[in-house]
Amino acid sequence: MPEDRTDYDIVIHNGTILTINETFDIIDNGVVCITNGVFSRIERRRYDRPLPTATHSIDACQGIIMPGLINTHTHVPMCLFRGLADDLPLATWLNDYIFKVEARWLNSENVHLATLLSCAEMMLSGTTTFCDGYFFEDAVASAVEECGMRAVLGQGIIDFPAPGVPDTEKNVDEAAQFIKGWKDKTSLITPALFCHSPYTCSEKTLAKARRLSDETGALFQIHVAETQAEVTRCRQKHHLSPVLYLERIGVLNPLTLVVHAIWVDDADIECMAKRGVRVSVTTESEMKLASGVAPLPAFLDRGIAVGIGTDGAASNNNLDMFQEMGFAARLHKAILLDPTVLGARQVLTLATMGGAEAIGLAGEIGSLEVGKKADLIIVDTSKPHLTPLYDPFSHLVYAASGGDVRVVVINGRIVVKNRKLQTIDIEAVMDAVDDLAHRIASLDET
Amino acid sequence: MPEDRTDYDIVIHNGTILTINETFDIIDNGVVCITNGVFSRIERRRYDRPLPTATHSIDACQGIIMPGLINTHTHVPMCLFRGLADDLPLATWLNDYIFKVEARWLNSENVHLATLLSCAEMMLSGTTTFCDGYFFEDAVASAVEECGMRAVLGQGIIDFPAPGVPDTEKNVDEAAQFIKGWKDKTSLITPALFCHSPYTCSEKTLAKARRLSDETGALFQIHVAETQAEVTRCRQKHHLSPVLYLERIGVLNPLTLVVHAIWVDDADIECMAKRGVRVSVTTESEMKLASGVAPLPAFLDRGIAVGIGTDGAASNNNLDMFQEMGFAARLHKAILLDPTVLGARQVLTLATMGGAEAIGLAGEIGSLEVGKKADLIIVDTSKPHLTPLYDPFSHLVYAASGGDVRVVVINGRIVVKNRKLQTIDIEAVMDAVDDLAHRIASLDET
Repeated sequence: MPEDRTDYDIVIHNGTILTINETFDIIDNGVVCITNGVFSRIERRRYDRPLPTATHSIDACQGIIMPGLINTHTHVPMCLFRGLADDLPLATWLNDYIFKVEARWLNSENVHLATLLSCAEMMLSGTTTFCDGYFFEDAVASAVEECGMRAVLGQGIIDFPAPGVPDTEKNVDEAAQFIKGWKDKTSLITPALFCHSPYTCSEKTLAKARRLSDETGALFQIHVAETQAEVTRCRQKHHLSPVLYLERIGVLNPLTLVVHAIWVDDADIECMAKRGVRVSVTTESEMKLASGVAPLPAFLDRGIAVGIGTDGAASNNNLDMFQEMGFAARLHKAILLDPTVLGARQVLTLATMGGAEAIGLAGEIGSLEVGKKADLIIVDTSKPHLTPLYDPFSHLVYAASGGDVRVVVINGRIVVKNRKLQTIDIEAVMDAVDDLAHRIASLDET
Repeated sequence: MPEDRTDYDIVIHNGTILTINETFDIIDNGVVCITNGVFSRIERRRYDRPLPTATHSIDACQGIIMPGLINTHTHVPMCLFRGLADDLPLATWLNDYIFKVEARWLNSENVHLATLLSCAEMMLSGTTTFCDGYFFEDAVASAVEECGMRAVLGQGIIDFPAPGVPDTEKNVDEAAQFIKGWKDKTSLITPALFCHSPYTCSEKTLAKARRLSDETGALFQIHVAETQAEVTRCRQKHHLSPVLYLERIGVLNPLTLVVHAIWVDDADIECMAKRGVRVSVTTESEMKLASGVAPLPAFLDRGIAVGIGTDGAASNNNLDMFQEMGFAARLHKAILLDPTVLGARQVLTLATMGGAEAIGLAGEIGSLEVGKKADLIIVDTSKPHLTPLYDPFSHLVYAASGGDVRVVVINGRIVVKNRKLQTIDIEAVMDAVDDLAHRIASLDET
């Protein structure tokens, strides 16, 4: 047997494991072993036996070892416009700022660059998987692969000329091409489609996209019931709420990820539960845009699979899922005047297994269990704001932030080590984004 | 002239200065000079002249140079109970957990230790001044001095036997002793008093405390209208709201800091404005405890001086004022469905000048202006989540977190340098708190 023979690719030890399995097992002095990108052994350390040997051995320094966070709704290239315009009415923000800079500045190269930046931000704050919808999604996908992240990526479909898709007649075909191109290409990327909304896509487009989703098994993402105005217009036009309109035209099924779902009533929620749709709630962004407050506790009461997400960095304005957990956990307590709503463990579950279920990857990720894909993070708890530690769930939801993540493993690859990115040159990316932003800010037309 | 003669104690350069002065001047390529603990020069760098010489020269690395944040409401020793019990009704949380562990574990030594931990957390997250109310405040004060922080500290007054004050007859006298002991002792500490609430202090106690405040000029802190139940009970007992009850017995004047003020109506707000009281709003903690939402925008509309604060770490569960800004900025937009409410610049002002006004130190701190006490922080913006940078106010409120603070100066002393505390041994403090927490968790009675 050669001398360098090791038992595992990676062994992580000396930490508290939050499995987020069905029984929420917590393993003190845990050991996690990874082989070929998959968890091969998860157990309490036996001090009467040597630590398993591995190519890479990682000391968790008594921190928390847990599943990577899953961000169920993003538009990752929009970090280019982070803080460009805030505190404005939604229509002003979109029409006078975002749509203009998108039309002017989006191209394959800039989308690729911006995606590298967003992936870096997400990995450094403990997110291992995200679900995105935007344009030039091909460029998003290649950047995600370069970073070594996991993602469900949806090419955008909207019934007006869009960045990269000038001909609206071809928008669903473009999405079909994207799905075909990335299907089974890499285990990191699951192609999907992203219909912008029921008010920007025609019934014909939605039906065509639905067929594409059903034929390919691709996730069908769509913004629904985001604002009161949208619901009013939908009722005027279709005599139905957005949810019931989508139900009537056959869009809703378990492959549908309904994003936002803020202005929904009991009949809508009933329908969503019956159809088995999944929901993504983006609390921070929805608050900042003054869209309203989605009835997240009601979704959970009805057994709907819910994940949480950050939305794009232009409306959030960061991609830190720890912050997102903190907002989701606190907001509904304040609104319902009930401190027992959305406890810490439940919220951490939304950000891990809940997210996996919402985006259709519950069999592969979201918990630390033997056989699942090896996506995990280590949170450094030896910090003043995380001292003392009585309850790890409480700390992760109410006290920690993305900056406390020290190690990130995705698909069995160490992508962040001691808070340093291992897969891309982030300094070069930031410099390039700064240069581009300088031109965007100066409205340079050259 | 000796060779080592320098112009200033500290010179900070190569950053963008947010002054938060009356005209909100922003100075690119700014230079801040400090002499004897006071700002002596603040200006744009003239590249045709040499940088002023100083004992300590600090390169801001193109980050943001701004006033230190001011946390207007804390119970700093409560970090001992951070995460001990969450997601519970307020009465259960207080009666079954907090009051019990306070009665068992609070003493001068533990309060001193816990204060060191909270000060470390606050300094590392950019807070330079805080306003506290608790028991054993003498021990708090000595720990604050040891850390080199600035604080307004109020000895607790409550009409039942309290930690360190078993005889309720002497509670105001104890506060008087505390004020006398710390008045003019150090420029870092301003002694104050802290009446727990109108329902836990008798009219006689409140009147006596009011006299003490008026005679000494000490800030009179009091929790008011925190829960619906408090208002109901007050109306039953006094036929007045808590605010109007305090008005009737003469407690309200510009030395009063009303904390929470969640369940107040128009008449209450009118009275608060008329009396010139100051208000502290603790959004995150109020949300987590499900107390409700204070009408912060209405206070500002009426010209009331408002600061924001974290409350204690047992109910927040951290002391990060960046998070607190993020919550205050987003919550009212979601509640009022108006994205223009509480814009980023206004919220940053609440956390700096607003806080200084709320705690009676507007002449000394809260902005970077020549003659003011030299309290400042440098925020490192060369991070993925702060890239690109179009608007520093937006980044500080919507994207940054306490972990982005690289340098902290308080009273002209560098207390944090490259994210390392310079004044206390934080590793030793964390170890000691961990040991104590282990005993608290095991309910060790030894």
